[in-house]
Amino acid sequence: MVTLYHCARARSFRALWTLEELGLPYELKIMPFPPRARQEGYLDLNPLGTVPSFIDDQGKLMTESAAICHYLVTRHGPTPLAVTPDEADYGPYLNFLHMGEATLTFPQTIVLRYTMLEPEERRLPQAAEDYAKWFLSRLRAAATLIGPEFVCAGRFTAADISFGYALKLAGLLGLAGEFPENIKDYWARISDRDAYRRAEAAEKNV
Amino acid sequence: MVTLYHCARARSFRALWTLEELGLPYELKIMPFPPRARQEGYLDLNPLGTVPSFIDDQGKLMTESAAICHYLVTRHGPTPLAVTPDEADYGPYLNFLHMGEATLTFPQTIVLRYTMLEPEERRLPQAAEDYAKWFLSRLRAAATLIGPEFVCAGRFTAADISFGYALKLAGLLGLAGEFPENIKDYWARISDRDAYRRAEAAEKNV
Repeated sequence: MVTLYHCARARSFRALWTLEELGLPYELKIMPFPPRARQEGYLDLNPLGTVPSFIDDQGKLMTESAAICHYLVTRHGPTPLAVTPDEADYGPYLNFLHMGEATLTFPQTIVLRYTMLEPEERRLPQAAEDYAKWFLSRLRAAATLIGPEFVCAGRFTAADISFGYALKLAGLLGLAGEFPENIKDYWARISDRDAYRRAEAAEKNV
Repeated sequence: MVTLYHCARARSFRALWTLEELGLPYELKIMPFPPRARQEGYLDLNPLGTVPSFIDDQGKLMTESAAICHYLVTRHGPTPLAVTPDEADYGPYLNFLHMGEATLTFPQTIVLRYTMLEPEERRLPQAAEDYAKWFLSRLRAAATLIGPEFVCAGRFTAADISFGYALKLAGLLGLAGEFPENIKDYWARISDRDAYRRAEAAEKNV
């Protein structure tokens, strides 16, 4: 059994969605955000204080959401959610898996910080605007690289979960109106999956 | 044969270092920074305009440096540089691989942008200081999670290359004086490897 420490709508949603796609049993601990301040003992579990924390079936800690997606589909496979090293799209699969977080999520956290999380006197409209632009510019470029239905490999994979969460967060930040058309269609398609709905229900039900 | 488009000291160093660790043949194209502005035709190759661009042996583009490290060690293995799904440290391996970029490199690019790359009137000392602190705080936490010699698995792996590049960049930004002691020792150890020196020589020799 694996355990996921999650905050509603946070990056840990990637891990939750992957668990639902796989149909794996898991224990879900829902915490108030930010848990470093509001969940007693959280720093003992995860000294970074970040979300997610995931405890694997070896008792090992993982904290990077895109890494957890790939971990689950390769350790608990075989599953078409993983692209294997012998497939032609193995490189693009790994690339979109990392891009979803490193290139398309981090810049949005700067927008979030300087428009909402910081007290009024520490907000930085320029930084928020710079990184909203930066995100949308990279997203427009990525939109030219993805496949017609899924980001790669002609099927839904863990890379779609990583990439898709960046779109979910952008929606929460009010940026979805500026998505390229193929990204709007793509997001409508992948967020209509049963496992996505089950993940959204799970974070409300605990 | 694979091709790496690289700028000296940029994140693409991770891919170069991995290629040297593996002893794989590769073509290296060194570009001026930033190539989106200074290398003609670069956006046709990589619409994101970011560094690295890597063309794999299937002719597929990759742009995420940590993804390229894992790609190389899993597609061109077997090699002890990869940790495999059946090993106890597979989770921590993937976690440190992603952490090196998503958690430990991106915040430093904000420091770089607002202290050096932006014109004087657009610099934001508060954002630069916020993310230098953010980086050092996450690094101190990560320092409590790594192994005694390497980040995980008791041997040097692609996760050390990803994590290590974040330390290299921090050194370039003047932050190395604030590393925890075990991180100072770790960085001295892994940057003393022959393949690291060959990668540094390669970026000077083209």
